[in-house]
Amino acid sequence: MSIKKIDVVLSPGEELPEADSWLVIDILRATTTMDAFFSSGGRTLYPCPSIEDAFTLRDRLAAGGDPPLLMGERNALPPPGFDLGNSPLELLEYGPAKKTAAVMATTNGTRALLKAARSGRPVRPACARNAQAAVRAAASEGGTLGILCAGLKGRSALDDAACAGLFVEILVAGGDAELGDGALMALEIWRSCPDMERWLRQSVHGKRLIGLGFEKDLVFASAVNSSETLSLFGRTESGDPVIRRA
Amino acid sequence: MSIKKIDVVLSPGEELPEADSWLVIDILRATTTMDAFFSSGGRTLYPCPSIEDAFTLRDRLAAGGDPPLLMGERNALPPPGFDLGNSPLELLEYGPAKKTAAVMATTNGTRALLKAARSGRPVRPACARNAQAAVRAAASEGGTLGILCAGLKGRSALDDAACAGLFVEILVAGGDAELGDGALMALEIWRSCPDMERWLRQSVHGKRLIGLGFEKDLVFASAVNSSETLSLFGRTESGDPVIRRA
Repeated sequence: MSIKKIDVVLSPGEELPEADSWLVIDILRATTTMDAFFSSGGRTLYPCPSIEDAFTLRDRLAAGGDPPLLMGERNALPPPGFDLGNSPLELLEYGPAKKTAAVMATTNGTRALLKAARSGRPVRPACARNAQAAVRAAASEGGTLGILCAGLKGRSALDDAACAGLFVEILVAGGDAELGDGALMALEIWRSCPDMERWLRQSVHGKRLIGLGFEKDLVFASAVNSSETLSLFGRTESGDPVIRRA
Repeated sequence: MSIKKIDVVLSPGEELPEADSWLVIDILRATTTMDAFFSSGGRTLYPCPSIEDAFTLRDRLAAGGDPPLLMGERNALPPPGFDLGNSPLELLEYGPAKKTAAVMATTNGTRALLKAARSGRPVRPACARNAQAAVRAAASEGGTLGILCAGLKGRSALDDAACAGLFVEILVAGGDAELGDGALMALEIWRSCPDMERWLRQSVHGKRLIGLGFEKDLVFASAVNSSETLSLFGRTESGDPVIRRA
């Protein structure tokens, strides 16, 4: 099956159009961190809309046995009481194989995933590292592919838009698809300079992270097609949102 | 005075950042129609958030004398009972000098103007036709310039983003200014092909208008720097939002 239409939503506050499946991008850093988690032994990740929800869910899950890893950020830094922040490199240093389940709350990425999931359609976290693999999986759904950029605090962000442009580039190389305005814009941005690290460094979010000492996370996030790992949004038996390694 | 920072809001649903003044773009077609109105004798335009509000205001204003022109659109077409649609060429054919006051309701443009006006800062409608003049007026305010793209039904739109890119191009040619993510994205889009008519024809909104028979409006809207006309958002003595020829 091939994609008929690509609709890129540049701003997380927009009402979502109809789509047959969704890719959600928060390259700095939630979906990049998710890729690191699933690529190195993680199996189950619970996305939460807020830090408070994350604590509650962690405690509930811990009651049944080994507590899951608690990770995420507020203003790019680990909230007090969390095991880890939202840094893929910090996670890899910690050694994800120690915990195969994690609860995650971030300002932009987890909320965007939960928003896309309200469509009831297949939703996949995606980033530059697993671009080719994620795009191929989404393309197999056929129909209209929605790409939701998590952005920064409710606004559109250059880092996610450039990554969306990379996805559109991969998709249009594989066949004809109708491009919505957001897809055309993202594609023009990416084509004007197909260099992910440069876009991450130019973006407001990237500059902020460099200032906070996370420059290596930007370099890590910009490694296009360095991962083949896939994951898929779903629900637990008790109805909790969950992302599982696919 | 010169601009220190340029913040382009690509999507009308985003929370607006702080800015010292605003340019609002709805190139297809509200702000282009406003430019045609003020360039050909119009003096006072009342922007309304809805068709119902427009009828009410028109009737109230008519009670004091000559009724103002009632113009605007719903789904790109003139609402029943309106004097005119949202077409600059239809307006010019009608002869705006017949009426120097108009009430206007459109889906995207008038709402975006009213949203920017809630900032309490100077707000100017702008389009490709009066790009240079509008940008020069906004630059004279100094500080941070906000550029709000009206978009299409709550989503970001290629036509307005390309026009915002043209504005940023004019501004950066005049001096150094810090560019937010939206400004960088708009600039890349514009620079990848500095041809307004091409962008209007590629956009979802432009294609729709061509399908409805408004192709000449697109050509008219794409005439960069063909107008020197300026207008400014304000309030009447009774508090009604109003845009006056400046």
